[in-house]
Amino acid sequence: MKNNHVLNEMASALKEATSVLIYPHIKADGDGLGSAAALCHALRKMGKEAYILMEEKVSETLKFLDRGYCIYDASLLPSPDLTMALDCSDHTRFPGRSDSYESGKVKICLDHHMTACPLGDICFVDPHAAATGELVYQLLMEMGVELDLEMAESLYTAILTDTGRFQYSNTSPSTHQLAAKLLAIGVDSNKIHNQIYSNVSLGKLRITSMALSGVKLYFDGQVSVARVTRSMLEEAGALMEDTEGIVDALRSIQGVEVAVFLKEEEPEHIRASLRAKSWAEVDSVATRFEGGGHKKAAGCSLYTNIDEAEALIIDAVRGIFA
Amino acid sequence: MKNNHVLNEMASALKEATSVLIYPHIKADGDGLGSAAALCHALRKMGKEAYILMEEKVSETLKFLDRGYCIYDASLLPSPDLTMALDCSDHTRFPGRSDSYESGKVKICLDHHMTACPLGDICFVDPHAAATGELVYQLLMEMGVELDLEMAESLYTAILTDTGRFQYSNTSPSTHQLAAKLLAIGVDSNKIHNQIYSNVSLGKLRITSMALSGVKLYFDGQVSVARVTRSMLEEAGALMEDTEGIVDALRSIQGVEVAVFLKEEEPEHIRASLRAKSWAEVDSVATRFEGGGHKKAAGCSLYTNIDEAEALIIDAVRGIFA
Repeated sequence: MKNNHVLNEMASALKEATSVLIYPHIKADGDGLGSAAALCHALRKMGKEAYILMEEKVSETLKFLDRGYCIYDASLLPSPDLTMALDCSDHTRFPGRSDSYESGKVKICLDHHMTACPLGDICFVDPHAAATGELVYQLLMEMGVELDLEMAESLYTAILTDTGRFQYSNTSPSTHQLAAKLLAIGVDSNKIHNQIYSNVSLGKLRITSMALSGVKLYFDGQVSVARVTRSMLEEAGALMEDTEGIVDALRSIQGVEVAVFLKEEEPEHIRASLRAKSWAEVDSVATRFEGGGHKKAAGCSLYTNIDEAEALIIDAVRGIFA
Repeated sequence: MKNNHVLNEMASALKEATSVLIYPHIKADGDGLGSAAALCHALRKMGKEAYILMEEKVSETLKFLDRGYCIYDASLLPSPDLTMALDCSDHTRFPGRSDSYESGKVKICLDHHMTACPLGDICFVDPHAAATGELVYQLLMEMGVELDLEMAESLYTAILTDTGRFQYSNTSPSTHQLAAKLLAIGVDSNKIHNQIYSNVSLGKLRITSMALSGVKLYFDGQVSVARVTRSMLEEAGALMEDTEGIVDALRSIQGVEVAVFLKEEEPEHIRASLRAKSWAEVDSVATRFEGGGHKKAAGCSLYTNIDEAEALIIDAVRGIFA
């Protein structure tokens, strides 16, 4: 563990505070909320007043993590001794709560996303950690906290979701060592996996299967394309957010290197998500349409109808296989 | 580790043998083939003649595990010093190779499936192991083998697939500890996950989405039902084996406790697969139609048309929610 002294300093600051507000990023995911819930629970067990300040409702799938920790109004805990940005290290990642964060007497920040300008009085960003949950575990150890089942479940959720079930290349031996420790405390892996991955709404299942039924392949099966239109959503009884995951299914087709998923946000506004399986660099396609992202995951918007948008993207993707 | 002395005895027998034939069960899965490949590679590195004897082709998804180990003709290695049933401990699990197994001068057996009648001269069955891969790891340690990347990849595949990506309740702290060791040797988790889970044929994707588009819910959304007919397979360009996984998707729907998947094997022969999410016991339904299985996963055949079969199963499932 590097920069041990920073975590040590952070642990001391948390131990000294009597009121703490925690700020996970917007659209809090399993790592953001799991990390926050584990820490919030630990702080309360130490007799402190601690809350997680949110700016949107917790997603249905992650509700089990919020055991009375989440509040939506900063005035419930005015002038906290300590504010802590967690799983984010940039104001733009918690825009509606930025002022509240600044009101903390001491401001700290713990994250694993690389940022240009880390914030707070004490800041620890470790991009080598698979999840912020790994860093919260290290912090709790620094604080001398003994993990209980509730903290273990929250931390397990954090590392499970941010590694894509121990899949992504950020998964390290220490990720699995931590998982081993959490299971030893009593985490029921089957229960948590069911909660996260076996909790699909009927609308989501329907829109996913409708979209995938219409999959098309290009360039000798190296590119897969599917779409969701407004009328398909209506027919499926689904929301656009239910289309999450479709692009991963497109990417998982045998022989496919690039997956393209088109969402009709408005009749003349198409959002394209691009994913690469192993070697392709799809950000080059997205930037052509003023979008962006990473080499393996990128996106862009096209202001035209969906057929035209598909033709434009396919034409841009062609260059990858030239 | 229990029964250490049996593994020790097994290790000695393997070290003494100069020719070894390994027998994974029919329809070899990631654990069967991964365990066999790891052991076969270790034996060859020790200078022995070792092969995996198969009775069917290796599935497309698992081909990467066979680096010249699999043979289909027992006469290529007549009268082996040692034969080893792996990931199976019952002749019915390798019916076409049973005679060949018996031809071994010494016969051993290593498995994690509980069987009434374990076989071989030396037999070690540990139902607490999440995968036979865990037991092969222990055996290799007993043999003093230093794991290389190839063995590590094979063992990682074994534990990954038999725990459903570290999900099932068989996943223990030691499963994760082993995963940590294997990643430390250099296993690329992303590569293996892609190989296993991002390798879906177009036919499979199509038949899956067709079946799920037609999902029906019963009993206030607690039961989900879908079907695949011969004509749907034809339309999708898929085989019946491509329908694997559909019942798990049905089970993953929010609020669903029991999933029912109906396959039209023949016009008047319907195969029903039943899965429970948390508390239901579906074997009781299967046994009503002379089928069987476990509490959470069971199956049966109905000799009638698919509409009639669905009505019969739904009627039988009703009792679970009475």
